[in-house]
Amino acid sequence: MRYLGELRDGEMFKETYLCKQLQILKTKAGKSYYSMLIQDKTGIKDAKVWELGPGIEHFDTMDYIHIEGQVTCFQGSLQLNVKRVRKCQEGEYDPADYMPSTDKNVEDMYKELLRYVDKIKEPHVKKLAQSFFVEDKDFALRFKRHSAAKSVHHGFMGGLLEHTLGVVRLCDYLADQYPLIQRDLLLVSAMFHDLGKLDEISSFPENDYTDEGNLLGHIFIGTAKLNERMKTIPGFPKKMASEIMHCILAHHGELEYGSPKKPALMEALALSMADNLDAKLQTMKEILTGEEDKNDWLGFQRLFESNVRRTSDYE
Amino acid sequence: MRYLGELRDGEMFKETYLCKQLQILKTKAGKSYYSMLIQDKTGIKDAKVWELGPGIEHFDTMDYIHIEGQVTCFQGSLQLNVKRVRKCQEGEYDPADYMPSTDKNVEDMYKELLRYVDKIKEPHVKKLAQSFFVEDKDFALRFKRHSAAKSVHHGFMGGLLEHTLGVVRLCDYLADQYPLIQRDLLLVSAMFHDLGKLDEISSFPENDYTDEGNLLGHIFIGTAKLNERMKTIPGFPKKMASEIMHCILAHHGELEYGSPKKPALMEALALSMADNLDAKLQTMKEILTGEEDKNDWLGFQRLFESNVRRTSDYE
Amino acid sequence: MRYLGELRDGEMFKETYLCKQLQILKTKAGKSYYSMLIQDKTGIKDAKVWELGPGIEHFDTMDYIHIEGQVTCFQGSLQLNVKRVRKCQEGEYDPADYMPSTDKNVEDMYKELLRYVDKIKEPHVKKLAQSFFVEDKDFALRFKRHSAAKSVHHGFMGGLLEHTLGVVRLCDYLADQYPLIQRDLLLVSAMFHDLGKLDEISSFPENDYTDEGNLLGHIFIGTAKLNERMKTIPGFPKKMASEIMHCILAHHGELEYGSPKKPALMEALALSMADNLDAKLQTMKEILTGEEDKNDWLGFQRLFESNVRRTSDYE
Amino acid sequence: MRYLGELRDGEMFKETYLCKQLQILKTKAGKSYYSMLIQDKTGIKDAKVWELGPGIEHFDTMDYIHIEGQVTCFQGSLQLNVKRVRKCQEGEYDPADYMPSTDKNVEDMYKELLRYVDKIKEPHVKKLAQSFFVEDKDFALRFKRHSAAKSVHHGFMGGLLEHTLGVVRLCDYLADQYPLIQRDLLLVSAMFHDLGKLDEISSFPENDYTDEGNLLGHIFIGTAKLNERMKTIPGFPKKMASEIMHCILAHHGELEYGSPKKPALMEALALSMADNLDAKLQTMKEILTGEEDKNDWLGFQRLFESNVRRTSDYE
Amino acid sequence: MRYLGELRDGEMFKETYLCKQLQILKTKAGKSYYSMLIQDKTGIKDAKVWELGPGIEHFDTMDYIHIEGQVTCFQGSLQLNVKRVRKCQEGEYDPADYMPSTDKNVEDMYKELLRYVDKIKEPHVKKLAQSFFVEDKDFALRFKRHSAAKSVHHGFMGGLLEHTLGVVRLCDYLADQYPLIQRDLLLVSAMFHDLGKLDEISSFPENDYTDEGNLLGHIFIGTAKLNERMKTIPGFPKKMASEIMHCILAHHGELEYGSPKKPALMEALALSMADNLDAKLQTMKEILTGEEDKNDWLGFQRLFESNVRRTSDYE
Amino acid sequence: MRYLGELRDGEMFKETYLCKQLQILKTKAGKSYYSMLIQDKTGIKDAKVWELGPGIEHFDTMDYIHIEGQVTCFQGSLQLNVKRVRKCQEGEYDPADYMPSTDKNVEDMYKELLRYVDKIKEPHVKKLAQSFFVEDKDFALRFKRHSAAKSVHHGFMGGLLEHTLGVVRLCDYLADQYPLIQRDLLLVSAMFHDLGKLDEISSFPENDYTDEGNLLGHIFIGTAKLNERMKTIPGFPKKMASEIMHCILAHHGELEYGSPKKPALMEALALSMADNLDAKLQTMKEILTGEEDKNDWLGFQRLFESNVRRTSDYE
Repeated sequence: MRYLGELRDGEMFKETYLCKQLQILKTKAGKSYYSMLIQDKTGIKDAKVWELGPGIEHFDTMDYIHIEGQVTCFQGSLQLNVKRVRKCQEGEYDPADYMPSTDKNVEDMYKELLRYVDKIKEPHVKKLAQSFFVEDKDFALRFKRHSAAKSVHHGFMGGLLEHTLGVVRLCDYLADQYPLIQRDLLLVSAMFHDLGKLDEISSFPENDYTDEGNLLGHIFIGTAKLNERMKTIPGFPKKMASEIMHCILAHHGELEYGSPKKPALMEALALSMADNLDAKLQTMKEILTGEEDKNDWLGFQRLFESNVRRTSDYE
Repeated sequence: MRYLGELRDGEMFKETYLCKQLQILKTKAGKSYYSMLIQDKTGIKDAKVWELGPGIEHFDTMDYIHIEGQVTCFQGSLQLNVKRVRKCQEGEYDPADYMPSTDKNVEDMYKELLRYVDKIKEPHVKKLAQSFFVEDKDFALRFKRHSAAKSVHHGFMGGLLEHTLGVVRLCDYLADQYPLIQRDLLLVSAMFHDLGKLDEISSFPENDYTDEGNLLGHIFIGTAKLNERMKTIPGFPKKMASEIMHCILAHHGELEYGSPKKPALMEALALSMADNLDAKLQTMKEILTGEEDKNDWLGFQRLFESNVRRTSDYE
Repeated sequence: MRYLGELRDGEMFKETYLCKQLQILKTKAGKSYYSMLIQDKTGIKDAKVWELGPGIEHFDTMDYIHIEGQVTCFQGSLQLNVKRVRKCQEGEYDPADYMPSTDKNVEDMYKELLRYVDKIKEPHVKKLAQSFFVEDKDFALRFKRHSAAKSVHHGFMGGLLEHTLGVVRLCDYLADQYPLIQRDLLLVSAMFHDLGKLDEISSFPENDYTDEGNLLGHIFIGTAKLNERMKTIPGFPKKMASEIMHCILAHHGELEYGSPKKPALMEALALSMADNLDAKLQTMKEILTGEEDKNDWLGFQRLFESNVRRTSDYE
Repeated sequence: MRYLGELRDGEMFKETYLCKQLQILKTKAGKSYYSMLIQDKTGIKDAKVWELGPGIEHFDTMDYIHIEGQVTCFQGSLQLNVKRVRKCQEGEYDPADYMPSTDKNVEDMYKELLRYVDKIKEPHVKKLAQSFFVEDKDFALRFKRHSAAKSVHHGFMGGLLEHTLGVVRLCDYLADQYPLIQRDLLLVSAMFHDLGKLDEISSFPENDYTDEGNLLGHIFIGTAKLNERMKTIPGFPKKMASEIMHCILAHHGELEYGSPKKPALMEALALSMADNLDAKLQTMKEILTGEEDKNDWLGFQRLFESNVRRTSDYE
Repeated sequence: MRYLGELRDGEMFKETYLCKQLQILKTKAGKSYYSMLIQDKTGIKDAKVWELGPGIEHFDTMDYIHIEGQVTCFQGSLQLNVKRVRKCQEGEYDPADYMPSTDKNVEDMYKELLRYVDKIKEPHVKKLAQSFFVEDKDFALRFKRHSAAKSVHHGFMGGLLEHTLGVVRLCDYLADQYPLIQRDLLLVSAMFHDLGKLDEISSFPENDYTDEGNLLGHIFIGTAKLNERMKTIPGFPKKMASEIMHCILAHHGELEYGSPKKPALMEALALSMADNLDAKLQTMKEILTGEEDKNDWLGFQRLFESNVRRTSDYE
Repeated sequence: MRYLGELRDGEMFKETYLCKQLQILKTKAGKSYYSMLIQDKTGIKDAKVWELGPGIEHFDTMDYIHIEGQVTCFQGSLQLNVKRVRKCQEGEYDPADYMPSTDKNVEDMYKELLRYVDKIKEPHVKKLAQSFFVEDKDFALRFKRHSAAKSVHHGFMGGLLEHTLGVVRLCDYLADQYPLIQRDLLLVSAMFHDLGKLDEISSFPENDYTDEGNLLGHIFIGTAKLNERMKTIPGFPKKMASEIMHCILAHHGELEYGSPKKPALMEALALSMADNLDAKLQTMKEILTGEEDKNDWLGFQRLFESNVRRTSDYE
């Protein structure tokens, strides 16, 4: 497959892509044309059908389409000038080719996460973690494929797993460094801190906020789901249940970031800082590696309230 | 019964009160004495036992005690100089005399609330309201007695009911004024908006934050409890369930006030403003009526960021 | 009359509209054309004269013009392609057809407002209200026609009256609910709270900030005007005068919203919250009803710091 | 007269002072005593009458009293142990001795201010300034004696004049430096920027917020007073009137500091910054000279959000 | 030379300008064209080369180019339609014609600044000022030519000197008015407060943030440079050195404006306010004089959080 | 030695302590007494000398004194009732006994820090680190003994080393996890991030802000010191120097926390978050272990804007 990221100005193309968006517009002269966003795992490109005719079959937003035409350049960006379009059937394409995806090995990451489940000692807490990650195969499947965001950090397939693992690892490190921390509580909270994202954001290829997600948010959704599961585990200590739920509720660290409670336990504090650290460093990484001219100042970044640039080489 | 609010400087007293707090301290000269906070429904007073002797029986914080002695005045405030203390048995006193309480009729208020339950038309939503207010007798009992706060507005027995009714009434008024509002959704959300306070704050006479309350907060607790109840009602529309929970989650109006979501529906917006309006006006009322010198400027009030005074008479 | 809101793509038109804005521009090729904003009470549309010729008479911004041509569609929005233009004379059109206007009955609303004037008991305060609403015919006329804003909530003819009445009604309701409130003070303050808007914003069809409005703002203008009027009423109690002016000054509730004083009286607090409530709910209504696709998420709304959507139906 | 600032530990005294506050309290042992705040122009001291007897005549808060006794030291501060008290008659004392007062010559400052009035060229504006400062003798008298604050900067007799002159001088300097500034507008606005303080704060010796001051604030009071005066000057240009009032309204510079408008004219901007500069430097001066140990760090000052100290000597 | 600010619609031109930016783009039809920003001291204009041919020689961003063509008007703004381009050699043009520049006499300003250096009495402090302004000829040259900003106030050649002198003058005035101020400290701090801008911003014609400027900022750079210089002056009192550096560090007045310390000395406070005053008034001046329609409201200005307009004439 | 932390109510004592503060006060009855703060490594206690007599020798603040007397309890806190005092000579005591101190092994921590110095590869950067930690013996000595704060986290001997090591370790971990990070830059910045504290805060036993510290702050002091040292290392790359200084300047993460620059490099971001994480967790640890009743809610903690409690036990 020839990916969008590999196309060059002037090149002819003949390939299957995902049509993320289709609009039917008119030129000033009143002639209809199609304006599309075309996606594969390497990114998104603008495409146009200027001449509607017999080679342009019917298709719709979110269809996989086989297109032919030529690459042009409009105001510095590549654009696909499409001459023929055909809607594809399931089986003609592998959806994985069309979603941005983690560059790490998903199965390896999941195995590492399971090792942290094994590390939990308190039997009820361990049972809680196992009930999701070990015993619930459907959950495991969805957890591996989900993203951690619509657009910002870890907004790709496997992103939820990659981010969760990054936070769990750092929490385990912190439990080593600060002996006052209860490792079991911190590990289990880290594993489930973004649990609610499975319902807040729809699966790929859509990867957008659901109605429930917009109304309730992943913090509530995830905490409520844990609450129900803990009630099914006989003898789950009520105090531990409250502490785990507190860590999830407080993991955004500040009320204005959507946590209904500020961290009141050392583990809640540690989790919120670990989550923030992994998110910010990943966001910075995505900014720094997303730009071609990597050694220049990249302009003001609102999240960091600063102009940023890639560091010079020390080796 | 002679209430604390009726005692005058120099007067002898012989009465039963609730001991809200007991501390054993020493004078500069090294002699032990008791320092107490004594409560009845009219308020709280400072009391001292300067001479520990045979007339001073053993008792503890939160005991009802029968005390004798004389009222004195220390730096402008009345203080009880206690000569004899005896711990009382259940039955010797009526707890209702010792809790601050709404000055409205609790049963009348509850009946009015039930009329709003009747006004709900959508059958699943009505069922939800009835399952608590009509069918759950224990819930009804607790709801009538609970306060809406530890100290600020409506921090007295019946306060939760009085505040809830005030908000429900205003919401019903708003549904009349703004026809776009879905009355059923607004009424049911108003009825349950502080549901979580039943678990966040312990019952009188303690009336303090519980461990669960400190960790999870009434917004989460109440929404999660509704969530569970709605799942037991066959065919409860998922979208309505999300909308009701959204209204509860968003009822503080701003993230920094502990709502994990800002109002995204017109009813959520209306509820948050009605709740705020009733709370602010009640707080102002408590400030204005709590001071004896009612027509003067009462000094800077932090909540209102202003000096305040009672308005002059227009009639 | 065929309103702008009724025009469809491809349709020929021949109608009189208000020209809100006229710009003379050039195409890339250097040819002159007219770009206009055309308004009637149903909204504003983009219009172009591509061919300047004998059928295009002279006219200017804020003229009423009779135009002929065809409706086209440019990038999803309707656009008027104008072939002939003629400036109209007064009498050829009814200005009321060209201003957005309340959908309520203005005279009914005004009568209801007068009933609240009657409800005021304190004679000086009642005299103050009557001196404007009853005795000053010119004032009454202007008050009925004015908008409450340049663009946001109630920014249409009759909007000032509709908003004022909404606030007065809610204040009357609050005076019922909270007996500590002095009804006369609250009613009169509600009636006049946006008095200064008559001078801050010019009349329709202009409906824009005046020089005085930009420099002084409606809070100062209205309070100063009341101040002068009260001085003409013999024996007006100075304390009441201060209290009324305080309520107007403080009605934005927060210093950062332009009130030079925070509410220090219960009525000032009630007024500021009633004003806010009516404004926010009306704004939400305008957003929810202004969009065609009414059941979808409508995108992030800056005022509400949230994505919003219309609630599902409960009946 | 022996001023409070001159008294030393152990010294006997016999002098007339102003009793700013009188409280009747009881010792732990139940014995009544008087606790007073005693004031003269050099400051305020704590005083006690431990023994009530025939030498202690009746008096009240704000009386001038002749007292005898001995200076003692309590926890590092001087305290007056009073043995005899007698209330004085008018004529026995000169009130000027009992009010803190500017250390500059009031008449010289007033003459300098009049020279700036003369400097105004536009005849209506000049007339406005003269109508207060030249023609209104009662106004002149009050203006010279008033303070500019209850407690912070320039909170002493003559403080309003001293601060006003400081701001006028700086504004005149700025009009020299920035030719775009309209000097007449800036001078007249500077002269009247704190006009409302004459009514917001009562005269000495009380020097406290009035009811009107608490409700309306000096920004509104002063602007409204100017508004009325300008209407009495025939032909006063409306645009200039609005510009002058704008400068007064906006002189606190920020909405959150109580200005209902942000500066929109260059002169309003200049005035707000000149006012702020004079106020802050004077406050810093009062802090630095109010402490005995002048070369040390004086501790965290909330207004400046910093620990501060006096600068070392450069000459 | 015919300046850009003098060109009129339709006019033919033949002149040398600085090419601030060159982009090679394509039309919708796929044809390449050049889009340029052309600068001289009167401003910046958009220019296009639609036809690439033998008359269009090679050139690049920041080259001085001689261009021929005709002025056109596109959407209300003038645009240069370029037919011929030739890159110029050094010597063909005077760079001073192409940079915006102060309208004051640079040498006069510098002489005035030197008089303030002479006014300093403390010998070490005077030596410090002389070592830069008198003895360091290269420094003097760069100081006279530098701007004080990339775009906002004083962003032109000579701007750093003009702003520095404005602040020094005001500080000298303040030292007259407030005798507690140490004039030497305030003058020297004012002279060097923006010293770091020489390294934070590159010289004209580039006038943009340097790498060092982006990473360290002028506050640190300038303070560190002074620190090194003071160490070379024998016997420089350590306390004075700290005080001078403190004034520079704190001269932005608030931590959120990039000062790592809030003003803790009266001179630091005075400097921060003088700097702010000169900067704000200059910015306002640049806004008010930069617009052609000088007497209208100019729209919302983000820095001033207000719509602004030029004041009416008083003379 | 019997430490202050071991004393019990009623016990007689006879021991040498550090007198952190001495005040000479008077009782109400006018009798002089001494009020002292007495310190050893386990904490600070209040002490009084009620009877001044021959057994009470002369001493001053910061003297080591040998005292005798009895422990009493005043309002719930232990107090030392001192009967005899004698000032001690150097040699009679070991200062280390009187300073709070890290509970970790200082030499072990230092050795671990040196291993991180060894890990740096870039020769100039390594040279920089060695020039302080390896070659400057006096620096090493001071670095090991210093605290990281006057009162909050790590405010004890060895605290600077312990905190620095905690941050270095975490940074090394982060360099493992995020390969885009330049390890050398992050390690060296972490080692020196609080370098300026050596001069900002005086050594034990004083441990208070110095004059230079108050005026300049540790961020500037440390960065300037590094700047000078780097200039002495031949060929130190200017870009690396700027990047290292940027990381130090930006390590507080936000302008309002005193950093004059926000993090613009990934390493600066990582350092600021690692510093914050170690500081917050250590502060939480100090709060949780500083209270005796370890399992209760400990009350509202301003830094964390929350009530906090110790977590329940999971093992």
